[in-house]
Amino acid sequence: MRRFKLAGGNGEMFWLEGDEFRHLTTVLRLGAGARIVGFDGDRSYVGIIAGIEDGRAWCRVESTLAATGEPAAAVYLALGLLKGDKMELALQKGVELGMAGFIPLAAARSVARPDERRQETRRARREKIAAAAVKQCGRIRAPEIFPTSEWKDLPDLLPRDTRYFLAWEEEKKRSFRAELAGVDWARPLAILIGPEGGFTRAEAMAATVELKATPVSLGARILRAETAALAALTMALGAAGDLG
Amino acid sequence: MRRFKLAGGNGEMFWLEGDEFRHLTTVLRLGAGARIVGFDGDRSYVGIIAGIEDGRAWCRVESTLAATGEPAAAVYLALGLLKGDKMELALQKGVELGMAGFIPLAAARSVARPDERRQETRRARREKIAAAAVKQCGRIRAPEIFPTSEWKDLPDLLPRDTRYFLAWEEEKKRSFRAELAGVDWARPLAILIGPEGGFTRAEAMAATVELKATPVSLGARILRAETAALAALTMALGAAGDLG
Repeated sequence: MRRFKLAGGNGEMFWLEGDEFRHLTTVLRLGAGARIVGFDGDRSYVGIIAGIEDGRAWCRVESTLAATGEPAAAVYLALGLLKGDKMELALQKGVELGMAGFIPLAAARSVARPDERRQETRRARREKIAAAAVKQCGRIRAPEIFPTSEWKDLPDLLPRDTRYFLAWEEEKKRSFRAELAGVDWARPLAILIGPEGGFTRAEAMAATVELKATPVSLGARILRAETAALAALTMALGAAGDLG
Repeated sequence: MRRFKLAGGNGEMFWLEGDEFRHLTTVLRLGAGARIVGFDGDRSYVGIIAGIEDGRAWCRVESTLAATGEPAAAVYLALGLLKGDKMELALQKGVELGMAGFIPLAAARSVARPDERRQETRRARREKIAAAAVKQCGRIRAPEIFPTSEWKDLPDLLPRDTRYFLAWEEEKKRSFRAELAGVDWARPLAILIGPEGGFTRAEAMAATVELKATPVSLGARILRAETAALAALTMALGAAGDLG
């Protein structure tokens, strides 16, 4: 069934409007009698379109679905700014994998630099990509998309009891996989992944001290930054039992 | 240090030629005295460029490196043909994650169809992508790239004792992660991932019987095909101890 973000409802009825309304009527050409899923940040409903008028599609709730798409664990990804469309790729796939929030990091070796003027455009675009991925993958809550930040800002952005891990290619002994076995999933977890050239030694050391981040290895191969991000999210959400 | 696929050597010397030679001399402009890594399918060496002549760069072996980039487990990915550049994306990242071989699958719901005339061009392009990823990530052996096949062909392509898993969205109980705990890593493992619309019920049932494939779930969210491929490879190679 097609999924739509609902605009409002009362448990017996819900309605769609705006982009979701246009997608339903103009692109998919669905009308009265069609069965769809409507979701908001709390739950999702199976509804039957009862009527379409004045830019709204009204649906009668047939059943309420359990919010099975939302992971129980809160796993944040803080990813060094990458060139080209790699941030968007990591964001889209991170949403599917179950990431709780996404922080683009201005890191020492980031070739891509934050552009003050384009910050808002970028962020709006990222929120759109995240919303589309949420809709496609069966989640009900969009992960939080933060503005481009530095690693030092993380404690101000994320919950106070967040536990930090930093993927660092110079860490040869401590494996992320092994560390995950000891994680308390009631606490949020944040994974820091460097830009194309990785974190500098100074960054890694400072994050270890100031964020109490644990530096970890993702294995013997050199993963591209976006690959490392997706592998780390998969490992963490897998270990939390949120990937089957 | 820059990594180059070597053309030949004897343990004390090795040489580069062809594309690797041109990359070294024309693009990177490295000359006598520069320290590089040369690798073949068995090991990799640190060498110092001793001389450049007649389209060959001769290097003196300084030390032999352990082949740490190669995973111990053999994990194959059979992926339904996808639209656009998604096959290439899964291939590139699959190489980094440590995949042993890549089989593009012509599946019932593949929108992209194999094009007989372009088969060879496609395969050559895929081999080039794989070779570049091998070089970048620190592996020494390129994964085998198979021509587009059907799932029925898999037993003829892969080692006889290969164990098959099939990611199937209708499988709600059996988790891939849980199944991996019982895997014997001395045997090759192959993961089958459907195209955009997933495998049909008929395909899944037939693969279960004929390949003795175990249908597994990757969790409650609907992952795009290429995301599912990378998540499954991460889980498998992670469980095998090949991702740190």
